[in-house]
Amino acid sequence: MSDTHGSSHHTSHDHACCGHDHGNDHSGALASPLEGHAEFGAAETPVLVEVTRGGIVESRHRGIAAIVDAEGHVVAHWGDFEKPVYARSSVKSLQAIPLVESGAVEAFGISDEELALACASHNGETRHTTLVSAWLERIGLTPADLECGTHLPYDDATAHALIRAGEAPSPVHNNCSGKHTGMLATALRKGEPTRGYIRFDHPVQQRILGVFEQMTACDLSKAPWGVDGCGIPTIAIPLGSVALAMARLADPRELPDHRAEAVTHIRRAWAANPYLIGGRDTFDTRMMEATGGDALIKIGAEGVMCAVLPKLGLGIALKIEDGASRAAGIAMAALLRQCKVLTDARWNELAGVTHPDITNRAGLAVGGIRPAEGWPEQV
Amino acid sequence: MSDTHGSSHHTSHDHACCGHDHGNDHSGALASPLEGHAEFGAAETPVLVEVTRGGIVESRHRGIAAIVDAEGHVVAHWGDFEKPVYARSSVKSLQAIPLVESGAVEAFGISDEELALACASHNGETRHTTLVSAWLERIGLTPADLECGTHLPYDDATAHALIRAGEAPSPVHNNCSGKHTGMLATALRKGEPTRGYIRFDHPVQQRILGVFEQMTACDLSKAPWGVDGCGIPTIAIPLGSVALAMARLADPRELPDHRAEAVTHIRRAWAANPYLIGGRDTFDTRMMEATGGDALIKIGAEGVMCAVLPKLGLGIALKIEDGASRAAGIAMAALLRQCKVLTDARWNELAGVTHPDITNRAGLAVGGIRPAEGWPEQV
Repeated sequence: MSDTHGSSHHTSHDHACCGHDHGNDHSGALASPLEGHAEFGAAETPVLVEVTRGGIVESRHRGIAAIVDAEGHVVAHWGDFEKPVYARSSVKSLQAIPLVESGAVEAFGISDEELALACASHNGETRHTTLVSAWLERIGLTPADLECGTHLPYDDATAHALIRAGEAPSPVHNNCSGKHTGMLATALRKGEPTRGYIRFDHPVQQRILGVFEQMTACDLSKAPWGVDGCGIPTIAIPLGSVALAMARLADPRELPDHRAEAVTHIRRAWAANPYLIGGRDTFDTRMMEATGGDALIKIGAEGVMCAVLPKLGLGIALKIEDGASRAAGIAMAALLRQCKVLTDARWNELAGVTHPDITNRAGLAVGGIRPAEGWPEQV
Repeated sequence: MSDTHGSSHHTSHDHACCGHDHGNDHSGALASPLEGHAEFGAAETPVLVEVTRGGIVESRHRGIAAIVDAEGHVVAHWGDFEKPVYARSSVKSLQAIPLVESGAVEAFGISDEELALACASHNGETRHTTLVSAWLERIGLTPADLECGTHLPYDDATAHALIRAGEAPSPVHNNCSGKHTGMLATALRKGEPTRGYIRFDHPVQQRILGVFEQMTACDLSKAPWGVDGCGIPTIAIPLGSVALAMARLADPRELPDHRAEAVTHIRRAWAANPYLIGGRDTFDTRMMEATGGDALIKIGAEGVMCAVLPKLGLGIALKIEDGASRAAGIAMAALLRQCKVLTDARWNELAGVTHPDITNRAGLAVGGIRPAEGWPEQV
């Protein structure tokens, strides 16, 4: 579970977001702690997102954010990036690594669509549930083997159709059903019991813990952990280290070969299937479609969000202090604009995602959600 | 619209929340600015509520709060209580004052249940909508006269029943339908056009603005305003002044006679109908039922909440900085406990409201929402 990274290499990315070239030889930069860079905003948790009404700010969302490269250099950060956070569903891409490395993908003929669903928090639309159901059946399991629990599909139209039909949702509708199917497939491939695969001490979860340690370059043996909404462990990891793991998904050249291959496979599947990652009207799907693979996006519960920027070799992680999902996407959009992954023109075209209006019950625009005035500073 | 309050009187409340007796002669204390008292917590916006998971704090909600008496003394506050906030639906009791003062209550035989609905953000349950529909019909109007817009009932069971029946929600299901019916009744009583009653310059709204000015002792002629979710104006008022208005609902003795009578009528109707104020599983209803009229509670959108404490002659107003409803009730419960309106035993019995567990999709308790460690300080 230790960091097996070799100590020196040379690479050069043009970091538009900071204007610096980090192509020097930073030996061992991956070993934690992260190498610090400029800090922006107050030492306390800065306001990242504002909610306006009638021309004044009605509510404010604070948060912390970090942009990190694959060598562990903190290119930019706001607030305390060493603060441990539960990354929740924003790191499903990391949780999918053992699915690929175990050989389950080849053994069960797992498609890129299925691999994308393992990385998804999907809307429970028919397009998502049909694929998950077929995948489960192909590996000889049923929805009853999923230990994620049930909830109505996030997609309203799909939820209303279920209600009208008098049907209860199944575990397949759970936004995490793809991830759980991937975990079951890994257990099957490894000859491990499928029952209890969500428990902290099950080999499936211990294997993922090891992946977290290697990808984040953190010793997590004493890290606090909790139980996620879908029943699996969620580990408290310093935010900047989560961003580092995303950067290593963007630029896996320093990873051991087998891991670099797995990561590249996951990244390709993720990038190719933006609709499967979220679905209708979700931030993740709309932003990934808009950036054409230049930004892979994943939201997590309680206001976390991650991005992988393959062309820039960067990773982004952010956490809204109060846990508000409505603010996470707005903050991420502002950082993508800052990194020039999103042009000003595109940011404006995507107003409904990057700085949406708030409408009242009669449909009138009465306010909006936007990056906080002056944030992020141009650097 | 000015403050017509006379300058001296003597009263004595035992303010359990601050341990002080404010029975001295505070001449003119009602004239703004509010008279300050001890400030607790950091000068910046303090953390009021924490969301935990796996034994650590996952998310934090900051906010400002003020406890004020009817003479305008700030008994306790946290954060900048002079900050203007949109009180949104938390001040429906104030918006109902012209309904009573206009004589509409007598003219239309408006019951205490209907008056309570004018103060409510109801769940859209049959019990609520039946009363609103009958009230509308009795004054010769229909749901089409309501300009509040529509949304599915907040109560899930009621919403699902509508969906199953293939019916669209009507304006009567809007949580503000009682308030809007009251505004229409006032317009009818005054011989004003009903159409456009939601507009800032309509006499119905201008009259309410005047009530706000008198009850909060603020000149609001230049106050920023926005449009609420239901289409009516919402005015930015310093938080402490909102609390003052609530205190004057608790103890209206200093108000002009006609206003004191109207306020007492509204308070009685509000206290007698906790279920109509919210409904199934709402904080307002559950807390009012639990305190048996010792605390009248009202939530508003974007994390505001008000309370009227008749026995203590106090008003409370709070605003969660990030707008989270989930935190407003927790913060209010902590302040009610601080004021000893809620005993420690009762606070524990009401755990599902005062410091609820967070459960995952499988129903397992995995965390909780609670007042921030050390907040509010015992004073």
